[in-house]
Amino acid sequence: MSQVFGGIEAGGTKFVCMVGDGPEGVVNEIRFPTAHPDKTIKKAVDFFQPYARSGELAAVGVAAFGPVDLNLASPTYGFITTTPKPEWSQVDLQPRLRRALSLPIAFDTDVNAAAFGEQYWVEENRSLDPLIYMTVGTGIGVGVVANGRPLHGLVHPEAGHMAIPHDKQRDPFPGVCPYHGDCLEGLASGPAMAQRWGQSAETLPGDHPAWELEAEYIALALANLICALSPQRIVLGGGVGQHPGLLENVRSGVQRQLNGYIHSAWIFENIAAYIVPPALGSRSGVLGAIALAIDLRQSI
Amino acid sequence: MSQVFGGIEAGGTKFVCMVGDGPEGVVNEIRFPTAHPDKTIKKAVDFFQPYARSGELAAVGVAAFGPVDLNLASPTYGFITTTPKPEWSQVDLQPRLRRALSLPIAFDTDVNAAAFGEQYWVEENRSLDPLIYMTVGTGIGVGVVANGRPLHGLVHPEAGHMAIPHDKQRDPFPGVCPYHGDCLEGLASGPAMAQRWGQSAETLPGDHPAWELEAEYIALALANLICALSPQRIVLGGGVGQHPGLLENVRSGVQRQLNGYIHSAWIFENIAAYIVPPALGSRSGVLGAIALAIDLRQSI
Repeated sequence: MSQVFGGIEAGGTKFVCMVGDGPEGVVNEIRFPTAHPDKTIKKAVDFFQPYARSGELAAVGVAAFGPVDLNLASPTYGFITTTPKPEWSQVDLQPRLRRALSLPIAFDTDVNAAAFGEQYWVEENRSLDPLIYMTVGTGIGVGVVANGRPLHGLVHPEAGHMAIPHDKQRDPFPGVCPYHGDCLEGLASGPAMAQRWGQSAETLPGDHPAWELEAEYIALALANLICALSPQRIVLGGGVGQHPGLLENVRSGVQRQLNGYIHSAWIFENIAAYIVPPALGSRSGVLGAIALAIDLRQSI
Repeated sequence: MSQVFGGIEAGGTKFVCMVGDGPEGVVNEIRFPTAHPDKTIKKAVDFFQPYARSGELAAVGVAAFGPVDLNLASPTYGFITTTPKPEWSQVDLQPRLRRALSLPIAFDTDVNAAAFGEQYWVEENRSLDPLIYMTVGTGIGVGVVANGRPLHGLVHPEAGHMAIPHDKQRDPFPGVCPYHGDCLEGLASGPAMAQRWGQSAETLPGDHPAWELEAEYIALALANLICALSPQRIVLGGGVGQHPGLLENVRSGVQRQLNGYIHSAWIFENIAAYIVPPALGSRSGVLGAIALAIDLRQSI
């Protein structure tokens, strides 16, 4: 009997659950809206239970919205911690799955898992390190793989909350972040765009000035991340991040912002291969969760 | 015969050379001003040569001002690259030392070496990872150790050139960075302070408003680095960085800036142990270079 692995992308709006052994070996997949934790976690358990009972399922990985507790020594390891999302604050997601399935459960942020998945499954990314994954959508999150491992450290990266220059004359919008107002997420997330322009990002036409401003904010943030982390590749995902034409403007904005200071042909000549869309499309998170499960199984 | 190691802190204004096997085992040490590369490198070689000839010296580490080429596969590995410092651009520092001393020569940025030294030699830092070292002086540099290794990636961290919010009404000073104007280094380095206030940082009295502004800029940058890298400890060094009273204001500025978002007792309750002065004092760089030499020797 061959082994398979489980992946859960536990998002704030939907859960994606997958059984398989990689991008080319998906055995089963479901997605459902994120509702009350009891109901939502039960749905995920019910999906995996047959594979667990048959003995095929070796481990499950979880790519969770956050903030989360990744400290293995903490009594709240594997919890979603202080999310403002109703009913999901302090939910013991990983421990519940472990108890229900009696399997090893790997656990990380959605964006760390996506970064790990893009490095693990994409041949040409294997040697690129650090690799960072930024999602721009309902929120802005950044995952980092450094020396082949998802970066945790004190908590985990929260680069959506970096402070960036904000020219209030050009853009008087005060930002939507309840903690920081005009941090990156406050200025450039989907909800920030919707509130600034009075219509949702999806309905803003491609030639609307919103997109130029959006590209500039993302470029400022990526230039800062290049200065801080010196990544060898940046993957830009998320609903807003994948808006047609945005990526090109982000790339030229990064070049403008760095202004020749970081001496690398990847930035000067080859930026289209340096800042890239997700090779795994919308599956970076859930396939990253499967990669985390495989990695955990191998470490036991 | 016992083995010793060499360390060189190759700074833009002075070289520090040391022979020993750690903070408690310094055998010899000299310092001299950074002059023409030929003369300066010869002085360093002359200092180490007797220990090399006797067979005691096992390896030398170099902590260099930059930018530097750390790519082992590059034909200019070990070079100081595009520094504006007269005569030092494209200088083959590591290859020259290797040829002159016929020894393994480890090579990294001054700040990566300082971060590595603080983690390697300071007992309580050993398990703190990532650990970052920021120097604020003539320039602003940031070194990062992640998973026990100095972070290189694309080039090496250059977080002195991050863009930070700049309230031009409060501080109309345009910044001194030739590449970015008002990036962090442009606003908060020693030369920026000197030009903004018309006197050198050392001569500015402790109650001058310069120091409040300085603490705010450094706090903004550290809050961004906390969001990007999630460090478990931050070491703040450099001539400006160690100005009496500055560190306290930086700590409270970081707490204000993060505003409760990063949930960690290190930030809420214990920030005095989270953002700290260098445990190795002014020797983080040169002792870090010795640690790099030991590490290289062990890897061969």
